[in-house]
Amino acid sequence: MLRFAQFGAGRIGAIHAANLAATRGTRLLHVVDVDAAAARTLADRHGAKVSTAAAALADPAVDAVIIASSTDTHAELAIASARAGKAIFCEKPVDLSLKRVDACLAAVKKAGVPMFVGFNRRFDPSFAALHARIAAGAIGSVEQVIISSRDPGLPPLAYLKVSGGQFRDMTIHDFDMARWLLGEEPVELFAYGSVLVDPAVAKVGDTDSAMIVMKTASGRLCHINNSRRAAYGYDQRIEVHGAKGRLLAGNRTPTSVELADGSAVTADKPFHFFLERYADAYRAELAAFVAAVESRSPLPVTAADGRRALVLAEAAVRSLRTGRPVRIGK
Amino acid sequence: MLRFAQFGAGRIGAIHAANLAATRGTRLLHVVDVDAAAARTLADRHGAKVSTAAAALADPAVDAVIIASSTDTHAELAIASARAGKAIFCEKPVDLSLKRVDACLAAVKKAGVPMFVGFNRRFDPSFAALHARIAAGAIGSVEQVIISSRDPGLPPLAYLKVSGGQFRDMTIHDFDMARWLLGEEPVELFAYGSVLVDPAVAKVGDTDSAMIVMKTASGRLCHINNSRRAAYGYDQRIEVHGAKGRLLAGNRTPTSVELADGSAVTADKPFHFFLERYADAYRAELAAFVAAVESRSPLPVTAADGRRALVLAEAAVRSLRTGRPVRIGK
Amino acid sequence: MLRFAQFGAGRIGAIHAANLAATRGTRLLHVVDVDAAAARTLADRHGAKVSTAAAALADPAVDAVIIASSTDTHAELAIASARAGKAIFCEKPVDLSLKRVDACLAAVKKAGVPMFVGFNRRFDPSFAALHARIAAGAIGSVEQVIISSRDPGLPPLAYLKVSGGQFRDMTIHDFDMARWLLGEEPVELFAYGSVLVDPAVAKVGDTDSAMIVMKTASGRLCHINNSRRAAYGYDQRIEVHGAKGRLLAGNRTPTSVELADGSAVTADKPFHFFLERYADAYRAELAAFVAAVESRSPLPVTAADGRRALVLAEAAVRSLRTGRPVRIGK
Amino acid sequence: MLRFAQFGAGRIGAIHAANLAATRGTRLLHVVDVDAAAARTLADRHGAKVSTAAAALADPAVDAVIIASSTDTHAELAIASARAGKAIFCEKPVDLSLKRVDACLAAVKKAGVPMFVGFNRRFDPSFAALHARIAAGAIGSVEQVIISSRDPGLPPLAYLKVSGGQFRDMTIHDFDMARWLLGEEPVELFAYGSVLVDPAVAKVGDTDSAMIVMKTASGRLCHINNSRRAAYGYDQRIEVHGAKGRLLAGNRTPTSVELADGSAVTADKPFHFFLERYADAYRAELAAFVAAVESRSPLPVTAADGRRALVLAEAAVRSLRTGRPVRIGK
Repeated sequence: MLRFAQFGAGRIGAIHAANLAATRGTRLLHVVDVDAAAARTLADRHGAKVSTAAAALADPAVDAVIIASSTDTHAELAIASARAGKAIFCEKPVDLSLKRVDACLAAVKKAGVPMFVGFNRRFDPSFAALHARIAAGAIGSVEQVIISSRDPGLPPLAYLKVSGGQFRDMTIHDFDMARWLLGEEPVELFAYGSVLVDPAVAKVGDTDSAMIVMKTASGRLCHINNSRRAAYGYDQRIEVHGAKGRLLAGNRTPTSVELADGSAVTADKPFHFFLERYADAYRAELAAFVAAVESRSPLPVTAADGRRALVLAEAAVRSLRTGRPVRIGK
Repeated sequence: MLRFAQFGAGRIGAIHAANLAATRGTRLLHVVDVDAAAARTLADRHGAKVSTAAAALADPAVDAVIIASSTDTHAELAIASARAGKAIFCEKPVDLSLKRVDACLAAVKKAGVPMFVGFNRRFDPSFAALHARIAAGAIGSVEQVIISSRDPGLPPLAYLKVSGGQFRDMTIHDFDMARWLLGEEPVELFAYGSVLVDPAVAKVGDTDSAMIVMKTASGRLCHINNSRRAAYGYDQRIEVHGAKGRLLAGNRTPTSVELADGSAVTADKPFHFFLERYADAYRAELAAFVAAVESRSPLPVTAADGRRALVLAEAAVRSLRTGRPVRIGK
Repeated sequence: MLRFAQFGAGRIGAIHAANLAATRGTRLLHVVDVDAAAARTLADRHGAKVSTAAAALADPAVDAVIIASSTDTHAELAIASARAGKAIFCEKPVDLSLKRVDACLAAVKKAGVPMFVGFNRRFDPSFAALHARIAAGAIGSVEQVIISSRDPGLPPLAYLKVSGGQFRDMTIHDFDMARWLLGEEPVELFAYGSVLVDPAVAKVGDTDSAMIVMKTASGRLCHINNSRRAAYGYDQRIEVHGAKGRLLAGNRTPTSVELADGSAVTADKPFHFFLERYADAYRAELAAFVAAVESRSPLPVTAADGRRALVLAEAAVRSLRTGRPVRIGK
Repeated sequence: MLRFAQFGAGRIGAIHAANLAATRGTRLLHVVDVDAAAARTLADRHGAKVSTAAAALADPAVDAVIIASSTDTHAELAIASARAGKAIFCEKPVDLSLKRVDACLAAVKKAGVPMFVGFNRRFDPSFAALHARIAAGAIGSVEQVIISSRDPGLPPLAYLKVSGGQFRDMTIHDFDMARWLLGEEPVELFAYGSVLVDPAVAKVGDTDSAMIVMKTASGRLCHINNSRRAAYGYDQRIEVHGAKGRLLAGNRTPTSVELADGSAVTADKPFHFFLERYADAYRAELAAFVAAVESRSPLPVTAADGRRALVLAEAAVRSLRTGRPVRIGK
């Protein structure tokens, strides 16, 4: 039995709490949120109590925490949880500042607790199958990875202002996919960013459209394309080319219905956004965390992976600013 | 809040109980099963108690029942539940004998309780979309329906012996789809049945391969093809042709991964069987039952639908025996 | 070098003449048509001369004939060509009357000339691959064949009146596919026919919508569905189910373009009609005829195949009239 | 009637000559090739005579030329043809040296003859539909173009040595597609190139794997990925993302056959290489040339387009050498 405290009772918090309820051998004890009503609703639904962070972390019955609060609180809560000896499941990103991420990782290391970062896409059945089949040799040695990752629509400008920018906020997931699938760390990248969706994005110093190319030491190549707008929904596709063939994970659709009429053959557009597309992935990542903590096995994705994706995002920001390719540091 | 007693704690019972647990505004109070250990396990998982049928039906706190026990107990439990004034969710079929079905329906009618029959396919997102889009006029008036419905493999002969035969056990779902999508009742049908999968099937007096054609009063046509074996998994596809076009609901697959290599482009085969393919449908049908009972709305699928599908199955049995087309009775 | 006379300079005649021109080792010497202008145009385009049937058949330089004139002239021209010792390529059908077909086959047999019937679908790359892969054992022993064959729109009533009816005119192609793919001759069939597209069809004593089921001696089953209207174009699909899997040949489209927008993902509808869908098949069938005649090999499809498909069509007509299943004769 | 001389009787020459023969209103008068036997075979097949370049160009009956000889002869033959007043259809590239291309264009301009460059992909039905639908506003204003272009296998090293390198030889087609679909000229690009397929490629100073990103003045972005090896055949796909949606042109396959068996659902791999995939495109480009020359309309693709694609290839070479993004010159 693994007993949890959860920080954050918003949209993503509700998902994690519901998935926890559906995972055997777990129990939610505390819900913490600055919004008392949200905390109360979630706590009641799952038979937990509303607590403060301090009280939740002081409870010796708590084995693990889920950090699903706002991004700027992740590092601090993770550090406090580590000091309290709790296993940590932290929504991405750990933090938008590499320095704070490093401080957090040091605290976690010192405490010797496991820390998982919520790169949910690794648990998407299609992307997970991609990774497994590469590992099984289906396409031989990997040569090129092409990641198409496009959101259905622009988030509010208020969000963009605190998001850390497109590369840290959005592309960070794709950087994690790239590292995971390339089989080698990228050593250099070059990034283009444009404002094509809405001129207001430029006013907050961000981009809404991007293309990146990366290479590894042995010459493997990776391309990422991003847009903050895809009229047809959430576009999440990955291609991996190897010596013996190509693996491709396409979009998923709500139904398999196809209409043929006088004008065309028409099928569903992809799922609307991440909550629908990655519903299975959210379930699977929490189950993977629980299983790894219970069995004291290594976590399948760690805070170090979160840090590494941020390093790539930082490099992309630098490339965009300088107009030059950038060597990727440690 | 709708409080339930459940009869049957086997495979399908476990699914209904888990879906009930995930449906807000419901609670499972009693679990009844001849297998005491199975009842205990399920009851414990959901905080219910193990009861006898009599005790469960005598409990005034129980508003509704789920009948997921063996087929031969459905009618009797439904009649007892009706007399106890409970709303009834009954797995298909109500019974394999039309006479007993009629007795059951009479008892339900007399008691004035709602009775739902578990034609789960009506709640499959793809088939539901098919129905909705026909209703919305996407293909104009319906002309032909083609139903491909093939199981991954032959069930045990012991099961076949008590199944009522391929038409009553397997095709009954397709008969319900046909009625639901044709928009008119079939008035005549003709059936071929063969034993192509395993000669042992002939020894128990059954078929494993079938093709049926049906027509309605206005001349709409319907074809059903069935096999007890599909090497590639559970094949569940429906086409509807209308004056203005064709709607088609295809199979669903576990992932969207596609491998292109030196020999071909290879994608996932369909989900293995009904538990995987219709997982969403099981969730949705229980939610629909709860919502209809709570709001005192008409049920979307009733015991009368269960009876009508059995009438078609009986006609198919007669056609197979006589080698003649058969007029479908009341 | 194989030298040809061609009877018929209409639409299908023009296709055969053009394909002949593109087939190495052939030459078109004579064009015969009651429409002198059409004959002249076609003859000029391919460097042939306009002739009468008698003159063309009397020319010892002519090795082979293409019969692409109106259906009612096929049998007579085939008999005359056989007597003149020419190899015969005859558009389907040989004739609409089984008696006349038998007379024609007798004359051909007596003359010892090869006679090919233009069942073009056997040469469609997709259907040919279906046949080849069944032969190669890809799905084990064949169990069920499902043929969907739907025209884009109703032909003129004037045509319907002389067409021989939907089964002899349209389904005849599907009967040939069924025989070719089942691997066994059908021994019984049952047919439904309706008028759903246009009530005027009933006035000329024909149907526009049909569903047929057939079985073979060993119990293999086949379904054919037909409609004279498919708003989305020419729908030509075949499924073959076997012990080890399913082969499916889908429609072909003009382009591979797919549009994803705010409402759906939209792809091309199938090719409009047979000239587009079967353009490759027309090329390949003529090449196959030329190759077989040149090398004195057996023809891949013969007048006997044409006769056999007509026998099935006759049985379907009888089933429709009597409302009974019909045993298929010799 | 447009009368042609053709330079080059090799593989691609044979295709152009056959397509010419199938294009009404044309005639092939002369075939010129250093390989006398090849010239003879092709001339005989199409009723032309074997000539020298000088004799062919001196023949006043010749209206137009097809230049399908080896790359190093294109510019010289184009200049001579221009001086002789012939309309020019020239296989790509005009030349591998920008200086010689400029000399050629000057001569053509001075002579006032039309010069077409064989960018066959513009005439592929799928890519042509992509262009037409962008023009028709299907996706609103273009934002990103993603071009996947991968050959089935490495050409002989002897060929690579004289090919001008991967960017000039292979990517040049993709550069043309990029310009044609972006709707704006690229102003900067960045290129990665690797040797992943065969180390021997490095020895001849070339790459076999490449990724390029480009941007236009308004910030539109384009990505090209190339490989000299795709185990599954010729991979030719283009995506165009716009404000209102995405257009995608996928691969084409020999048949529509799909096999579902115990392991997966398997479809055809794409056509093997350009001769198969672009067979329709070769037919259509020659027809477009003939139609434009006959009607004195502007050519749909000109020598200036050939030059512009070479400018992009040169920039990519420079980017690869310097490791820097490169501004694209005039």
